[in-house]
Amino acid sequence: MAETTDDRLRLLIERVERLEEEKKGISEDIRDVYNEGKAVGYDAKIMREIVKIRKMKPDDRREHDSILDLYKSALGLD
Amino acid sequence: MAETTDDRLRLLIERVERLEEEKKGISEDIRDVYNEGKAVGYDAKIMREIVKIRKMKPDDRREHDSILDLYKSALGLD
Repeated sequence: MAETTDDRLRLLIERVERLEEEKKGISEDIRDVYNEGKAVGYDAKIMREIVKIRKMKPDDRREHDSILDLYKSALGLD
Repeated sequence: MAETTDDRLRLLIERVERLEEEKKGISEDIRDVYNEGKAVGYDAKIMREIVKIRKMKPDDRREHDSILDLYKSALGLD
């Protein structure tokens, strides 16, 4: 039996909703890992920075660091 | 053998990274579902709106709709 057009739309929307739920679950798992880090004495904010830094290519990271240093010294943030 | 502190930090960071990868995969799956909808003639932007609307409680949705209508007519968007 062929599904109606309405069914097809509903099924697509429900698939998105299930995936959004999964995504939310993973975000909660991520929060749990940071909390676990905090519980053993790590700084969660710095951990988040590390995750971002590790995502960058080494060249991009070095360029980022040198521009940041430049701007910091231009503004007396030594 | 007990893990060192550095290992512990590295393992936490790697767990976050794996979870972030999973989350990215799910975001891609969601995009695929919208593209599938588009391929069979649905408007993906409206589908995204439907997902948002279905997330709201009926009372909140009705309140949202009536305030939106109010603002629309105040601005001549009939």
